[in-house]
Amino acid sequence: MIIDCHGHYTTTPKELGDYREQQKADLKKNPQHQAQKGALKISDDQLRESVENAQLKLQRERGTDVTIFSPRASWMGHHIGNASTSKAWTEHCNDLIHRLTTLYPKNFVGVAQLPQSPGTPIDSSVRELVRCVDELGFVGCNLNPDTSGGFFNGPGLADRYWYPLYEKMCELGVPAMIHVSEACNAPYFQTTGSYYLAADTVAFMQMMTSDLFKDFPELKLIIPHGGGAVPYHWGRFRGLADMLKRPPLKESVLNNVYFDTCVYHQPGIDLLLDVIPIDNILFASEMVGAVRGIDPETGHYFDDTKRYIDGSTKLSATDRAKIFEGNVRRVFKRFPSSL
Amino acid sequence: MIIDCHGHYTTTPKELGDYREQQKADLKKNPQHQAQKGALKISDDQLRESVENAQLKLQRERGTDVTIFSPRASWMGHHIGNASTSKAWTEHCNDLIHRLTTLYPKNFVGVAQLPQSPGTPIDSSVRELVRCVDELGFVGCNLNPDTSGGFFNGPGLADRYWYPLYEKMCELGVPAMIHVSEACNAPYFQTTGSYYLAADTVAFMQMMTSDLFKDFPELKLIIPHGGGAVPYHWGRFRGLADMLKRPPLKESVLNNVYFDTCVYHQPGIDLLLDVIPIDNILFASEMVGAVRGIDPETGHYFDDTKRYIDGSTKLSATDRAKIFEGNVRRVFKRFPSSL
Repeated sequence: MIIDCHGHYTTTPKELGDYREQQKADLKKNPQHQAQKGALKISDDQLRESVENAQLKLQRERGTDVTIFSPRASWMGHHIGNASTSKAWTEHCNDLIHRLTTLYPKNFVGVAQLPQSPGTPIDSSVRELVRCVDELGFVGCNLNPDTSGGFFNGPGLADRYWYPLYEKMCELGVPAMIHVSEACNAPYFQTTGSYYLAADTVAFMQMMTSDLFKDFPELKLIIPHGGGAVPYHWGRFRGLADMLKRPPLKESVLNNVYFDTCVYHQPGIDLLLDVIPIDNILFASEMVGAVRGIDPETGHYFDDTKRYIDGSTKLSATDRAKIFEGNVRRVFKRFPSSL
Repeated sequence: MIIDCHGHYTTTPKELGDYREQQKADLKKNPQHQAQKGALKISDDQLRESVENAQLKLQRERGTDVTIFSPRASWMGHHIGNASTSKAWTEHCNDLIHRLTTLYPKNFVGVAQLPQSPGTPIDSSVRELVRCVDELGFVGCNLNPDTSGGFFNGPGLADRYWYPLYEKMCELGVPAMIHVSEACNAPYFQTTGSYYLAADTVAFMQMMTSDLFKDFPELKLIIPHGGGAVPYHWGRFRGLADMLKRPPLKESVLNNVYFDTCVYHQPGIDLLLDVIPIDNILFASEMVGAVRGIDPETGHYFDDTKRYIDGSTKLSATDRAKIFEGNVRRVFKRFPSSL
């Protein structure tokens, strides 16, 4: 089985975007506007239509089986509005994912967006996580480490601010993917290029310079986009651990941190497989995401990362099975055993 | 000849640090304090002592010949104080580099720090660049793309804010290395780990999404630390150029942008050499910098990057000569032909 652990619902029916625009309009009139969840009229047929010719078609074409699926990352937009804005928006986004997992239980497994909001306690995120795991059958969450949208002025990931969420994640047995949303300080940051990769790198550095995993030995965090700059600079990070008098990375982070394979060319994947232990690598493509075109150098989709894993000359069959399935099941403990 | 194009004077005599502390003390009393340059009492013997057992010893041991040398990057601290603070501090830092290049003309060639200061025009940097090139014989400058120290809230590199500097650089025939200074939003950023690499990646994305090099076809910019996350994600950036309807990277940036080799392990250097055209790679180590220890996996210094270039199995002798010397001379046009 091939499990893609990083997919976002980027092809939502128009009604979801309209709902968000209405939220923004309400906030324009009154930044303190208290959002009500209200209803979203989207039929099952619309949901089917939105994925049949996109994610499902690509699953079939590429030969992957299941996608661990979450709301569109760039649309999380935690910097928009207030806590009520984020709560209503997040619940709808998660509800749609749940409906898709019900329509296509063999193709999609749910991961939650959290209703984070700058300057507000993490409690509402804890509550939404519980709802999504207990009631909607989700197996993980996406955690935004910079709800400001690019100003990097909130608490670092080792800050006690996050501890109630980490506690609940450990209790429920679910991991988080550390994933920022849209950058709102363009043109300084471009969301899917510089901002995502910068945030990935920042997250790793925060983890390796803290005692977070001493406090939460069971916590599992996934750094997407191949770990940002980290594997390419693995020597630098090993050396910085030494310079900063931190334990070796194997001790400080590699029992808890995982890298996905969203790296869109063969040499990058080869490097990832070369320097990061196989047990810490999870297959992912983020298909229908940041980079949707065809690579003129190969004639294949940039984001068809299965080809690069298949194309690696150093992986054993056991290694491949770990990356495609075993590691993902180990990290996402609640991934359905029936699948 | 082997030219290391990225070295900072990290081993300055204590008096320089004392001078900076006095600046900070003055600013504590009055944030508008107008700094006077004043004098710095450091003897030639002190300067010799500061490098003999550090940079010069390592040059000899590693078999490199010349270091293109600039003030300590993490100490540039453009966010500190006001324009007068930065002017006085920068002039002293550059003067020390000049004295070193006079004491060791075969070992050091100077590159300038600029007296940038948030919210102030770039004119003072243009003036200092002219002083350093015309009067001190410097061959380039370090340009800080985020003088806020980590909040990424200033003008992007394609903004017209920078154009007077770019014009002068082209007129003088000197390149800039895009290099941030200390992060002042710890623990969010760690300076030499996440902040440097994030800024490198941000800089590249700003360049590839702009028409900067159409306006300045002769401008040459160096992205340090192996280009941040860029080479590892070269497929992503090629794909993003396509997604964002930008020209291919070869057209948009590769006539103007260079990556140094400050990547501290063999697999990282191998990737860099594999995906980036050889003509765009400049040898560098940033020795006595961010990572000063010995890699237990190899028994050699992490930052002895010459070993990795030597260790590459794919480079021809011509390629090596380009990386070690030819490309550096081409980008740093004013590098002394006598050397």
